[in-house]
Amino acid sequence: MISSIKQLQNDVGNSIRIVGWVSTIRDQGFIKFILLRNINGIIQIVITEKKEVAKTVKELTNESIVEIVGVVKEKKQAPGGYEIIAEKITILSKAATPLPIAVVEKTGKEARQSKRLDWRWIDLRKPNKQLIFKVWTEMEQAFINFCSSQGYIQIHSPKLMSTPSESGSELFEVKYFNRTAYLAQSPQFYKQMGMAAGFEKVFEIGPVFRANPSFTSRHDTEFTGYDIEISFIKSHQDVIAEEEKILTTMIKAVIEKFDKQIQENYGRKLKVPKTPFPQMTLKDAKDILKRMGIKGEKEGDLSPKEERGISKYIKKTKGHEFVFITEYPTSNRPFYHMRKENNQTLTKSYDLLWNGLEITTGAQREHRYDVLIRQAKEKGISLKSIQYYLNFFKYGCPPHGGFGLGPTRMLMKIFNIDNVREVSYLYRGVRRLQP
Amino acid sequence: MISSIKQLQNDVGNSIRIVGWVSTIRDQGFIKFILLRNINGIIQIVITEKKEVAKTVKELTNESIVEIVGVVKEKKQAPGGYEIIAEKITILSKAATPLPIAVVEKTGKEARQSKRLDWRWIDLRKPNKQLIFKVWTEMEQAFINFCSSQGYIQIHSPKLMSTPSESGSELFEVKYFNRTAYLAQSPQFYKQMGMAAGFEKVFEIGPVFRANPSFTSRHDTEFTGYDIEISFIKSHQDVIAEEEKILTTMIKAVIEKFDKQIQENYGRKLKVPKTPFPQMTLKDAKDILKRMGIKGEKEGDLSPKEERGISKYIKKTKGHEFVFITEYPTSNRPFYHMRKENNQTLTKSYDLLWNGLEITTGAQREHRYDVLIRQAKEKGISLKSIQYYLNFFKYGCPPHGGFGLGPTRMLMKIFNIDNVREVSYLYRGVRRLQP
Repeated sequence: MISSIKQLQNDVGNSIRIVGWVSTIRDQGFIKFILLRNINGIIQIVITEKKEVAKTVKELTNESIVEIVGVVKEKKQAPGGYEIIAEKITILSKAATPLPIAVVEKTGKEARQSKRLDWRWIDLRKPNKQLIFKVWTEMEQAFINFCSSQGYIQIHSPKLMSTPSESGSELFEVKYFNRTAYLAQSPQFYKQMGMAAGFEKVFEIGPVFRANPSFTSRHDTEFTGYDIEISFIKSHQDVIAEEEKILTTMIKAVIEKFDKQIQENYGRKLKVPKTPFPQMTLKDAKDILKRMGIKGEKEGDLSPKEERGISKYIKKTKGHEFVFITEYPTSNRPFYHMRKENNQTLTKSYDLLWNGLEITTGAQREHRYDVLIRQAKEKGISLKSIQYYLNFFKYGCPPHGGFGLGPTRMLMKIFNIDNVREVSYLYRGVRRLQP
Repeated sequence: MISSIKQLQNDVGNSIRIVGWVSTIRDQGFIKFILLRNINGIIQIVITEKKEVAKTVKELTNESIVEIVGVVKEKKQAPGGYEIIAEKITILSKAATPLPIAVVEKTGKEARQSKRLDWRWIDLRKPNKQLIFKVWTEMEQAFINFCSSQGYIQIHSPKLMSTPSESGSELFEVKYFNRTAYLAQSPQFYKQMGMAAGFEKVFEIGPVFRANPSFTSRHDTEFTGYDIEISFIKSHQDVIAEEEKILTTMIKAVIEKFDKQIQENYGRKLKVPKTPFPQMTLKDAKDILKRMGIKGEKEGDLSPKEERGISKYIKKTKGHEFVFITEYPTSNRPFYHMRKENNQTLTKSYDLLWNGLEITTGAQREHRYDVLIRQAKEKGISLKSIQYYLNFFKYGCPPHGGFGLGPTRMLMKIFNIDNVREVSYLYRGVRRLQP
């Protein structure tokens, strides 16, 4: 393979081969300039009229892909401080014209979002968009390496299920030979199976599917989930402590590698959050919101507006970007959340907000077979349909808990981007299945 | 959380807390022994009749989960060389009796497979089965760390698609609001989109879905795929070279951590394969098979029997466990495989066999828009249905190629296990959607 743009300082005076996308062509008559872009950066290519290569340049279109052989020269005014005097240009792929959307666009002058999503791969050629996926790669690696170093076992649980994993609403049906299967709305049941299997600590990274008919900036029908589940906890506070460790590890890894680029491209200065993160019960949060004059939509949960309100309050009073909201009411949580010993109307569960956006739901799970059955019955769930799940708790299952974390929601907060469509490789929504 | 079995040598004489599953209870009247099992090993617990704890032991059932406080003692005859003299036993979860399948079973005396799959989480409590998933975790981490260190970008491409990604057969249909979606049979189209997006090198780990009605030991309807795609290659040989690097890295990582345990539990001695791996064209393979008296099922591909035959031949003649089979005919490969410049009936593609099992398919892809359209037409594919995919190649797309690798097939070869059901966390087949 051919070398990319990197460490050109070692190549000054040498003839090198380089490949990339033709970002712009500037024709000044006797001399032409190409800004060549690849995954590692942008470099100026100089073509003098004398050279044979000038002919090839005339055929070039924007976004065509070329291989260039040329001599590296220092050049202070050029992007990156170097340029290449072209000796040979080979067109590897010629881009059709006109381009449906431009690649190099000024901020605020981009094509409208739906058009950019139609041509997502051209949209993703912009270095500031590629940065999102470089950061994602780093963040996910930090998550995996943390878990592995702590003795977690990774699982890949099936996405095809015989029954719903969660509420039963927002469920995609699959024609499965001569019956119906459902797409997993989370790996919840199967990561709990790992606890009954004695794996003690598991993590999973995979797609989750929600037949959510909404069109908000935060919802999609398919997204990536990070899930963990751990055994032998005393309460959801053990899960919270583990999540704090995981999040600080991930954010630290991103800062170490991409702090400068995130600031330059998005004006966002990331900080490693201090532990422990602030906590607040849902009841206290509601009281504060009332005093702030922010009205909620429902009793047992926070609306997006309330989430933003509470995060603003925490930022102001504690100087922290994160806050755990605890003690959600039994009525608003799934049947498998464990309830407080001294108050059956409250669960040992939590949500985590990052700068006004919910990025996690976590809880201690009910691991006692008889209690779990009682709670399922109370919620009106057909025991028959989930008997295989209930069986996990019948032959020995340790106390356990875990959380689900949304990496795209984390990316929204890392980059201060307010729409999940911009941080997904390919967004899926009610009306979007293509490309 | 409570400490698990580990480094007990530092705790000799100390009182420690330990948790685990009651593997066996041996009652010798005045003295009772429990073999306690957790994810880190097995340890003997000693209960003397004088102690209060003897009462609790009487209530215990096999596979119940207990927390034990006791003093660590050296004891040569005990498993691991230590035992714990119990001072306190707390039952965390009592297992119902009788157990549907036993956990501690002699080799060859296990319950039949379908029953073990029904009670998969109990089956997975066996330390030799947990080892499979520890190895998987290590192997996958090695894959990810290799890719990240080489500048790959990780993608999570959607599994919900508007059209088939591959042939159109073996496809699962999803009811997607008021239309039909399909489950991705591979991330093929979308990892190629990463090339058109200028990501240059991408990898993806995720589920793939095949509505395969077969019941073989190698097929399932959902499994995990490792996929890579790289730009600016000269031919499929660049992909092969990259795969050799990735595989040796993965196998090396597994050997470093689990060599002894794999040998002890499965009698399999892993070796880091020498590079380059042997290669053979499909035509040469067929000639050799004919001489060996092994008949194939079809012209353009190898049957399982032929795969085993060729691997046997390579093992004998080259002493190698791997062999790349190249130059599959155009007629047996998808439309997007690039064809040989000098022979349009052959593709620049390959399969990789490991000890008689296909674990990979790879190829250089056709990146030229007009050629790709011609090849799709030849295969009778509706251009309209894949226009969004064809568009990836219209506005500049570098030469590229990649492969898909099956981790469960790798695990079959790592452990010499001949059935994919045994190395999957939860197997999915025509008749199996539970647990």
